[in-house]
Amino acid sequence: MTTTRAEPQPADFADVRTTNLAVVLRHLRTHGPSSRAAIAASTGLTKATVSSLTGDLIGHRLLRETGLSGNRIGRPATVLALDGSAYASIGIQVGPDRLTALAVDYSGDQLLLWHRAVDRAARNASAITALAQRAAGRVRQQGRHVLGLTVAVPGLVEENGTVRLSPALGWSGLDLRAQVAGSLRSGDLAVSVANHAALAAVAEHRHGGHPEATLAYVSGAAGLEAGLIVDGRPLRGGRGYTGQLGRFTLGPAGTPSLQDNAGIEPLVRRALPDFDPEALADLGPAVEQVAVRARAGDPGVLAALRHTGSYLGQGMALLVNLLSPEVIVLGDHFATLAEWLIPAAEAELNRHTSIRGTRITASGLGLHAAALGGAVSHLDQVDTGRIPRPLG
Amino acid sequence: MTTTRAEPQPADFADVRTTNLAVVLRHLRTHGPSSRAAIAASTGLTKATVSSLTGDLIGHRLLRETGLSGNRIGRPATVLALDGSAYASIGIQVGPDRLTALAVDYSGDQLLLWHRAVDRAARNASAITALAQRAAGRVRQQGRHVLGLTVAVPGLVEENGTVRLSPALGWSGLDLRAQVAGSLRSGDLAVSVANHAALAAVAEHRHGGHPEATLAYVSGAAGLEAGLIVDGRPLRGGRGYTGQLGRFTLGPAGTPSLQDNAGIEPLVRRALPDFDPEALADLGPAVEQVAVRARAGDPGVLAALRHTGSYLGQGMALLVNLLSPEVIVLGDHFATLAEWLIPAAEAELNRHTSIRGTRITASGLGLHAAALGGAVSHLDQVDTGRIPRPLG
Repeated sequence: MTTTRAEPQPADFADVRTTNLAVVLRHLRTHGPSSRAAIAASTGLTKATVSSLTGDLIGHRLLRETGLSGNRIGRPATVLALDGSAYASIGIQVGPDRLTALAVDYSGDQLLLWHRAVDRAARNASAITALAQRAAGRVRQQGRHVLGLTVAVPGLVEENGTVRLSPALGWSGLDLRAQVAGSLRSGDLAVSVANHAALAAVAEHRHGGHPEATLAYVSGAAGLEAGLIVDGRPLRGGRGYTGQLGRFTLGPAGTPSLQDNAGIEPLVRRALPDFDPEALADLGPAVEQVAVRARAGDPGVLAALRHTGSYLGQGMALLVNLLSPEVIVLGDHFATLAEWLIPAAEAELNRHTSIRGTRITASGLGLHAAALGGAVSHLDQVDTGRIPRPLG
Repeated sequence: MTTTRAEPQPADFADVRTTNLAVVLRHLRTHGPSSRAAIAASTGLTKATVSSLTGDLIGHRLLRETGLSGNRIGRPATVLALDGSAYASIGIQVGPDRLTALAVDYSGDQLLLWHRAVDRAARNASAITALAQRAAGRVRQQGRHVLGLTVAVPGLVEENGTVRLSPALGWSGLDLRAQVAGSLRSGDLAVSVANHAALAAVAEHRHGGHPEATLAYVSGAAGLEAGLIVDGRPLRGGRGYTGQLGRFTLGPAGTPSLQDNAGIEPLVRRALPDFDPEALADLGPAVEQVAVRARAGDPGVLAALRHTGSYLGQGMALLVNLLSPEVIVLGDHFATLAEWLIPAAEAELNRHTSIRGTRITASGLGLHAAALGGAVSHLDQVDTGRIPRPLG
């Protein structure tokens, strides 16, 4: 009999404590401020264990005492609340035409959101590092500890942070993580680089109001890619890559790909044949223009949206037939056009699968969901009970 | 901040023990017979813990003492080996034309393999129950405890064991698990029903020599379906369904699906236009005939295989672009024809993805991989340390 699965690791009491720290944090995140007794009653942990765990968390500035609860029989109890203000994290989203920096704290509060226009020549590791440096400086000025930085990039990104191929950015074999980490002044910042759609999916799952265990985020910001959450976690591809939706074709050589039919840039070219192609470097204004003309009832624009929507529905059918996600979120530029795209997509989806019940919706996170997901991913480790080392 | 992820559960000492039982079983499965001291040295568990854990496992007949080891300095030590003979499990695979029953014990030794031809009228829960009953009886006569029975079915199977839609079997809304469980004489048998390609993927992963964490098994036995292993575990779809590869289409209404172009039945019709369509109920002999004629160099048959292979490559590209599996295993009838299909498929795959390194191979498990995967899935729980109750 061959052995085939991951080696289980011996468990010890440290694992138990880590798990129980996570249980306490989770209780407070779900139920809001609570007394130690309420935490114990709800989690099944003993009061002594809860006291020890919450002491640790207060020491790390992850909890704070907020006063006494009055609304109960007997002695008033001290109420504990999550205190997310001490820890923050930064996401930088790299698009064809701009860099976006975003910082959030552990409570999920957005601390800053900056956009920088960049052209192809200026879109490099130095520009990313400089922006990250300034964002980290600003957050540290507020007395917060910056846990990490994630750079969100379209295309194939290796787990070690090398961008293997990003047609939208014109990058291949770029060791972006090493370049950024090497030139950051503060060497203690954890740096990672990941696919932008995968990070946007994390943001939707955590902050977008889509707590479903299996979720697909469809991005049209730079090509056509999907970010996939499966069983509550980002899907890790066997070779490290996932969600390359735009490459789908079915037919003899030369058959157009899904990107050709459902991508945002082809949509803009179809909907606005009079649009200056030079301006396509920045899709945002063009997409707004499509929305304006659709709202005015322009038949050519509406036909182009129907075309894109039906092919998008075929792409969704691929996702539904393979993974049956509970929700598919149309992201970034697709979200801007969702009111026209979704009806066409849903009709087509139902023709191409027998699986029902996947909810199709538009992202409410705007164009910087990937930056948010990048920032959030460093804060996730805290929720699993691996709490940061005490603040110096 | 919205809460979105699964609630972590408080951990206790029972979880630690379960994990450590799994560690000991895994050590013996990987390294073969070992002394208690060797297990302790390799796993990092204390000798006292190892003695307690192995005592439990011997009591459950999962380990046995095999004598003394001589090849070491000092006092010879008792050697422990896995003893899989006490526990067994049964898989029944339901195909359009036959039922297959297979039993394996916890060592992975195959105890029986039976085939029963069935026509559509006789292919029902009663026939499945009768076959399962006889197989369980035979295994119990050998003094083994039967842990469970899994029925493998093509199409959409709900987690509760209801077959929602199986076009290949002509079933819809059939509560197969309840029917089989309700009519089995031995009520203590755990019964489950699952998709046949998903179960075949489990078998490939455990017994097919493909220990890769991310694996896709492509089945052509009844339609065109993929079984997906991700991060070492069967992929669970958000709505419970996965791998409906045959439904893929891309193009205007009426465009043929992937099943139309890459399925086994269309291949047989294309390769053997003179073949009696009535005989298609049993694809096995027709597929053998295709292989015979291909081997003889029949140009029409070779062209049909190239057509199927290229479209299969486009289907594989979908899997690679979405999940980048480390290995794709061509199963059942595709395995029989692999020497002609794989070259055409690989060429097409590389045209449709920039992701390299996915290995394409043919299954060595024959036509009953799903039955094997069904049986194995009940034994998997033992490997996770949830050991069966002591034998009466």
